[in-house]
Amino acid sequence: MLQSKAFIKTKKEAPKDEVSVNAQLLMRGGYIDKLTSGMYSFLPLGFIVLKKIERIIREEMNAIGGQEMLMPALQPKELWEEAGRWDSMDVLYKLKDQQGREFGLGPTHEEVITDIMRKRTISYKDLPLYLYQMQTKFRDELRSKSGLLRGREFIMKDMYSFHASEEDRKKYYEIAKKAYGKVFRRCGLTTIAVEASGGSFSKEVSHEFQTPTESGEDLVIHCEKCGWAKNMEVADKKAGDPCPLCGNILTEAKSIEVGNIFTLGTRFSSPMNAVFTDKDGSAKPMIMGCYGMGLSRILGTVVEVNHDDRGILWPRELAPFDVHIVPLVSKDEKITKQVFVEAEKIYHALQETMTVLYDDRDSVSAGEKFADADLIGAYQRIVISEKTLKERKIELKKRDEEKATLMTAQQGIKAVRVAAKK
Amino acid sequence: MLQSKAFIKTKKEAPKDEVSVNAQLLMRGGYIDKLTSGMYSFLPLGFIVLKKIERIIREEMNAIGGQEMLMPALQPKELWEEAGRWDSMDVLYKLKDQQGREFGLGPTHEEVITDIMRKRTISYKDLPLYLYQMQTKFRDELRSKSGLLRGREFIMKDMYSFHASEEDRKKYYEIAKKAYGKVFRRCGLTTIAVEASGGSFSKEVSHEFQTPTESGEDLVIHCEKCGWAKNMEVADKKAGDPCPLCGNILTEAKSIEVGNIFTLGTRFSSPMNAVFTDKDGSAKPMIMGCYGMGLSRILGTVVEVNHDDRGILWPRELAPFDVHIVPLVSKDEKITKQVFVEAEKIYHALQETMTVLYDDRDSVSAGEKFADADLIGAYQRIVISEKTLKERKIELKKRDEEKATLMTAQQGIKAVRVAAKK
Repeated sequence: MLQSKAFIKTKKEAPKDEVSVNAQLLMRGGYIDKLTSGMYSFLPLGFIVLKKIERIIREEMNAIGGQEMLMPALQPKELWEEAGRWDSMDVLYKLKDQQGREFGLGPTHEEVITDIMRKRTISYKDLPLYLYQMQTKFRDELRSKSGLLRGREFIMKDMYSFHASEEDRKKYYEIAKKAYGKVFRRCGLTTIAVEASGGSFSKEVSHEFQTPTESGEDLVIHCEKCGWAKNMEVADKKAGDPCPLCGNILTEAKSIEVGNIFTLGTRFSSPMNAVFTDKDGSAKPMIMGCYGMGLSRILGTVVEVNHDDRGILWPRELAPFDVHIVPLVSKDEKITKQVFVEAEKIYHALQETMTVLYDDRDSVSAGEKFADADLIGAYQRIVISEKTLKERKIELKKRDEEKATLMTAQQGIKAVRVAAKK
Repeated sequence: MLQSKAFIKTKKEAPKDEVSVNAQLLMRGGYIDKLTSGMYSFLPLGFIVLKKIERIIREEMNAIGGQEMLMPALQPKELWEEAGRWDSMDVLYKLKDQQGREFGLGPTHEEVITDIMRKRTISYKDLPLYLYQMQTKFRDELRSKSGLLRGREFIMKDMYSFHASEEDRKKYYEIAKKAYGKVFRRCGLTTIAVEASGGSFSKEVSHEFQTPTESGEDLVIHCEKCGWAKNMEVADKKAGDPCPLCGNILTEAKSIEVGNIFTLGTRFSSPMNAVFTDKDGSAKPMIMGCYGMGLSRILGTVVEVNHDDRGILWPRELAPFDVHIVPLVSKDEKITKQVFVEAEKIYHALQETMTVLYDDRDSVSAGEKFADADLIGAYQRIVISEKTLKERKIELKKRDEEKATLMTAQQGIKAVRVAAKK
């Protein structure tokens, strides 16, 4: 991609009303735009990263049998009343259409998916079924100061599973838990699976996937030795207590919840009468589980845990570009021309097999180019300058490396290709 | 995909409250579910087709320089007031959050994209810029009886272009017009580009892309010889009149609007003060165009114009499956086993290079299997039965062909591969 043509308008300063690090850096880097508190646009650069997260989630959900679909955001009041949540869900945006009919803007889709299932003749042979979507959700939050970590409008993957037995649901719960770990690892996030309360759903088992970081709004207590972990809200332990499993000393950590998995059981299928025909011919409510994961929140969390004072350090699989090619302008016009010819050669060589941002701007200083490159945070950076040209070399470094290495263009192309794949 | 595992629950009858052919067939075929009037879920099968439309649009928009992004659905009232549309847009869903702040649910995004642009320092060198999204839109329609043709919640591609001069915008208008034709052709739709009024935007030139069909809600008048065409709403001609360009007799046609392109000029950039710095250093409002296209509406229109009394006839690029493999159960269990072994071989041979639906159900009659295959409408169908097995052959036909051809499995695999590509 040619940087002169791409809609990347970086900024030196973040807007004063934005206090979160993730939104500050993403706004300065041209990844997102803030429409108003809790509502952001994904600009072309941010959209690229969002699509990469989407792809990872899609691959991992399909790998555990998930079938992708898409449900509406507007949901009729009557459906929410059936499951008894119309009045109890305090973050539900409510509206009336011009005919006076009431709707909620879906913060989650248990009611809709259960309605879809109950309208069909389902036999035990059809189960289990795993249905998921990646879709825009809405939450009427009182406060929204954490950028993409707590949006009023945000993108979630929500999967719902339907089973003929509790044993089968439990088995899938563990499968989903593993798949979640995989998604977060591929996104470059460390997560702790912590026991939590069932929230508005039930008192049944649920797990949150928490990424430890100082900017987190949650507090978890965990054992670094055996993995025992609970959200502080439901823990009867405190830091310094011995681990109930292995006796090791427990520690507390601030963290961001990037996903959660719930036991639903028949919480929705019973009141909404979503049944299947069992082996013995009897009608039974389907046993359900649900599995949430925030795409925009993952994006925000990745920035919270992967940045320095100059900008973002994207993990390999999420970087908007595998490599950023940065030719520097020289005082001598002839040399500048040579530098750009060399840069363009490398651009064309790499473009076919990876995503490349080529800083083709010829009226921008070296300092500004470096500042932009660090802020944007492509996975690798190649610099070509008067200095490197003299030695018939280029400079290569990963964003997270302090020093660049001088090598020939051929060596550079090879090294970039190898690094982009692993 | 194994049909026994896929979430495809076909129905013999459509729900009585659904009068449109597109929604009836899509609901019966397991493509969509109706949540309530004007609001549909895309089930896994419908989601596959939706993604194919999305991909075609993305390819063609990127080919004309489009950069993809994603804007919020919730839009603050103040923004809509700036451009003077808060009170005049009658289909705007309006709501208040718990702090009393008012929002609209975006039926379109001129205000939001113009706000994004005005917050940046744009020079004439940065222009033109073409930004688009494929996103869920909302319209509080009084009536919604046409299935996916007029949804209250639906998916649109909306592109906005920004130019330094009116000449440049005009040039791009023609480029976009051509790209639109390409998209619709790839989706298997015939369209007429008709002159129309600017709607709520302006009195400037706009074009609608209309697909002629009896179920259309629009009426166009056009010349089949030279291509002159107008929406009847703005035409001062009637059927039988001579064409103002070539004198040929004009004809009327009912049609469905699948896309539209508008001249915006400075309709939004002037009141919202979205300016760029021109060559002479002066600040001027950006010249804008906008280009809409309904993804869910294209899907519905394709079904309206491509179906018979048995089901859907998907065009090649949109078919959810390149081929449907249908082994038939015989009275003799041994033969049934042989039939399924043969079918599975072909399934594995084809699966690597194309999308295949394999009807692995062994307790479903031939009649039911054929009915499902016709209803779902995969592009091609292979049948293996006791009869074909005896002759060491298989039966192959495209969905739109009346008769199947008997050939060897090897010939069939080859023919299916060739047909899936062209």
